Amino acid sequence: MARIGIVGAGAWGTALAATMSRAGHDCVLWAHETEVVEGIRDNGHNPLFLPEIALNGVAATGDLAAAADADAVLLVVPAQFLRAQCRRLRSHWKAGVPAVICAKGVETDSFAAMSEVVAAELPEAPLAVLSGPTFAVEVARGLPTAITLACADAAIGRQLVDWIGTASFRPYLTDDVIGAEVGGAVKNVLAIACGVVEGQGLGDNARASLITRGIAELMRLAVAKGARAETCMGLSGLGDLILTASSQQSRNYSLGFALGEGKSLADILASRRSVTEGVATAAAVGGLAAKLGVELPICAAVAGLLHQSRGIEETIRDLLARPFRHELGFLGEGRPAT
Amino acid sequence: MARIGIVGAGAWGTALAATMSRAGHDCVLWAHETEVVEGIRDNGHNPLFLPEIALNGVAATGDLAAAADADAVLLVVPAQFLRAQCRRLRSHWKAGVPAVICAKGVETDSFAAMSEVVAAELPEAPLAVLSGPTFAVEVARGLPTAITLACADAAIGRQLVDWIGTASFRPYLTDDVIGAEVGGAVKNVLAIACGVVEGQGLGDNARASLITRGIAELMRLAVAKGARAETCMGLSGLGDLILTASSQQSRNYSLGFALGEGKSLADILASRRSVTEGVATAAAVGGLAAKLGVELPICAAVAGLLHQSRGIEETIRDLLARPFRHELGFLGEGRPAT
Repeated sequence: MARIGIVGAGAWGTALAATMSRAGHDCVLWAHETEVVEGIRDNGHNPLFLPEIALNGVAATGDLAAAADADAVLLVVPAQFLRAQCRRLRSHWKAGVPAVICAKGVETDSFAAMSEVVAAELPEAPLAVLSGPTFAVEVARGLPTAITLACADAAIGRQLVDWIGTASFRPYLTDDVIGAEVGGAVKNVLAIACGVVEGQGLGDNARASLITRGIAELMRLAVAKGARAETCMGLSGLGDLILTASSQQSRNYSLGFALGEGKSLADILASRRSVTEGVATAAAVGGLAAKLGVELPICAAVAGLLHQSRGIEETIRDLLARPFRHELGFLGEGRPAT
Repeated sequence: MARIGIVGAGAWGTALAATMSRAGHDCVLWAHETEVVEGIRDNGHNPLFLPEIALNGVAATGDLAAAADADAVLLVVPAQFLRAQCRRLRSHWKAGVPAVICAKGVETDSFAAMSEVVAAELPEAPLAVLSGPTFAVEVARGLPTAITLACADAAIGRQLVDWIGTASFRPYLTDDVIGAEVGGAVKNVLAIACGVVEGQGLGDNARASLITRGIAELMRLAVAKGARAETCMGLSGLGDLILTASSQQSRNYSLGFALGEGKSLADILASRRSVTEGVATAAAVGGLAAKLGVELPICAAVAGLLHQSRGIEETIRDLLARPFRHELGFLGEGRPAT
């Protein structure tokens, strides 16, 4: 058994703490909100996220030093807060303790991947990325879930898999860190696009063709960033995209759906406590794609809708027009008909 | 404008007739059922399938010769009836008239692909395959849909795309006939597996990982049969799998769901008028895979459940156990952790 620090007590951090604690690990869960720390201490439940899940074995804390004093630390904070949180953690970090990145996104200022952010701010931490098709509530309930664990160091990766894995929560190891994390970032933007199309009432056929085009877009960016295309076809790419782009359980899909129905972004965001990662990442992915010289028309359409006041009709046209000329070309196929 | 014969007036044949007729083509729709022929003639609606869709411009017939007397003929009959129907059509067929295969499956007796069946029975017909993520009712309503049209002859393919395509129904041309049709066959079997998992209440995470594993399985069989892997990533493979494996609108998914809930196959089939293609294809795909020396564990689990009286718990174990050892191995990735 290991001592595991979990930094961030939203739904996903809470689910991971519940799972690892049930597996017998000594879990220390750091929460930003005092009421969450007190709720877990006093009642064994997180009052804000997954309040139905028992956390009796989990030690809650508001002290980052306590969470950093562990055999491994899971970083489960929103992508745009990861750098600041790593800076706060730095003085407490013990060299050699792995940092497991559970945030999905691209930093808006730097266009950096999450692993690049952590490498810069916690230079003594071996890095891993945990990413895949994982609705938090299902993991917390013990429903069967498979996930990618990416780590460049095979021995550390195997150790993390042993610690994190359970009979129902199964990490599969790869060394393609960039591949695992680009998938998790881009799928949130694509899920917003799918939500918009469904919210407009355009149907499942249109959404399926958009996802098909989307995986090629995700793959193009990942490969340009140094990933292997195969990783994008696994749990952290295609698997997570399929999950996120077809369920109202996804915050990104449901945000897109509400936009498609005509609600304003400001109103949607005002009604939410959780961060919807795809909103910031849509802009950041655009910046990263430009830097790498890659075209991502679906992500660009989403960024235009969210951040450049483009209209919904115009966006839909961008999302559905001539969808397969460029995309299948990348995959070595396709002589488009029109 | 062209004269188009459509052989088969189930939901998909009816939707294609409605679309092409609205586009101004002279459509002759052959129906097996007398009440369908009369319903369309007398009331402009198919009384059994998509009864809400207007077919005023469509000529209904019970005479195969009338449907074969056309510039192109769409074959929209269930997969296991395709050979017999082609034999009936043969004496009426004019050399050079393209046969557009809209059936999705593998023949149970011969393990033949649909294009192999038609090539044997209509040797003078140039072949094309029309396949992709297309719920019939959405196409009939004019919702935006993209589809693969596969044809080895580029000039004929372009002509068919011109005839079949509309502003909202867009075929994309490829020359990979086998790739397009294997995707459409295997996805029905995979959709049954996904339905079983959901029907058992195992959640969306499990289903997403099953689809991820499924696309690798689909790709393995298609490549062994001579297809290009890239085709499997397009509309007729991944696109159709995503659509079919995540919606109760799919007959195959909903059949799996009912099995997962504990209903018997006999009861489910007795309650249906339409053919659920994945049931026969599960067995046929297994035969084809054995012939080609390819392992398809998900399809085998479905065949075991449907045709070999295996239990649901055992099937679920087969579907979810160690899902990524073999599969990602095929894709050049994956050092599974357990």
